[in-house]
Amino acid sequence: MSRNGRSFYIPLMPKVSAAHRERRRRQILDAALACFLRKGLHETSMQDIFGESGLSAGAVYRYFPSKDELIKAITAETSAAMNATFVPLITQDPPAPLPAVIAAIGPRIAELAREGGPLRLAPQAWALVLSEPGLGDHARETMAMLRDLWIAYAARLAETGALPPGTDHVAVGKTMFALMHGFLLQTVVLGDITPDELATGVGALPRPDLRAARG
Amino acid sequence: MSRNGRSFYIPLMPKVSAAHRERRRRQILDAALACFLRKGLHETSMQDIFGESGLSAGAVYRYFPSKDELIKAITAETSAAMNATFVPLITQDPPAPLPAVIAAIGPRIAELAREGGPLRLAPQAWALVLSEPGLGDHARETMAMLRDLWIAYAARLAETGALPPGTDHVAVGKTMFALMHGFLLQTVVLGDITPDELATGVGALPRPDLRAARG
Repeated sequence: MSRNGRSFYIPLMPKVSAAHRERRRRQILDAALACFLRKGLHETSMQDIFGESGLSAGAVYRYFPSKDELIKAITAETSAAMNATFVPLITQDPPAPLPAVIAAIGPRIAELAREGGPLRLAPQAWALVLSEPGLGDHARETMAMLRDLWIAYAARLAETGALPPGTDHVAVGKTMFALMHGFLLQTVVLGDITPDELATGVGALPRPDLRAARG
Repeated sequence: MSRNGRSFYIPLMPKVSAAHRERRRRQILDAALACFLRKGLHETSMQDIFGESGLSAGAVYRYFPSKDELIKAITAETSAAMNATFVPLITQDPPAPLPAVIAAIGPRIAELAREGGPLRLAPQAWALVLSEPGLGDHARETMAMLRDLWIAYAARLAETGALPPGTDHVAVGKTMFALMHGFLLQTVVLGDITPDELATGVGALPRPDLRAARG
């Protein structure tokens, strides 16, 4: 099919440019996402994805050998999109303070979890952990990897004095990660929480005065 | 069906005590939960539940006319179990402070989300919102109802001076609810967060000094 582009010297090998491959890959991933959002991860078949993409089975399988590989690719891409926002903030020196991180990450989550966005699949990905061992392990590993970044961020906050000495940075990292997940979940399920509300809520969360509690 | 209580004048109707009915209902719900956790909400059939419970189709259908009704009943029971812990704390005068609420709710979530516990179904229930309109609406309403309690709690904290005057209590309620969900999710998926870590993390969350920020 793409033999056309190959020039006439080696006519049997299709010459496919990297740009063409990337467009094709994108086309398949977009079609898969549309199907997954409409029918659910479980109910979507490869046939649905052929139909949605307008490509032949052979064309799709050349890029993704199975539905599982499509799910993993969408998960990896979405994680990478989150990290592109998050990682620079936590690796800069000193790391960005939590309000700045929330001001950047909140809108990014909201954007990726918009109607038609890949982060709307997150609850289904979490559900896989229980019901599908293979893909579930992948979802679990992805979540653990993302959380490690929050724990690393908390460690840097502690190092640079933005958390009191002796703070359990693992607990803080897990808690910040919990906030992001809860925000994502309300975005997807209830659709009525704004990034500003998250920022305001975290800022105003009732908290014991640590110094008083320790004194 | 509640003719049963009608005494011996109508001998053709089996006399079934309320306690018997409740035991039978429990037996069916426990069997359904075991199946849902093992096979997933979607993959479980009513036949699986008959088998697991050791009851006939007729016996099961007398209590629950469909799988959807079983899912709703488990959801309602689990919400009620959470609320039995939460509601007294937020309605007392003054309402319990957030650390006390977390100290009570964290272990309750961990218990309900233990291996075999009903809260392990939560990610699957959230996933329904996207893929199954009918049940999804029910899951969404349940989540909204639970969140309303957290917003009401934040309103009471504001009323009683535990939050600074003018605090956006809706934002605080949504944020506290987000924390609980994120904690639940890590409990179910990663299985390595403790209620103590949540309490520590919330206490130590880096937060701007509100007075300084406003001054």
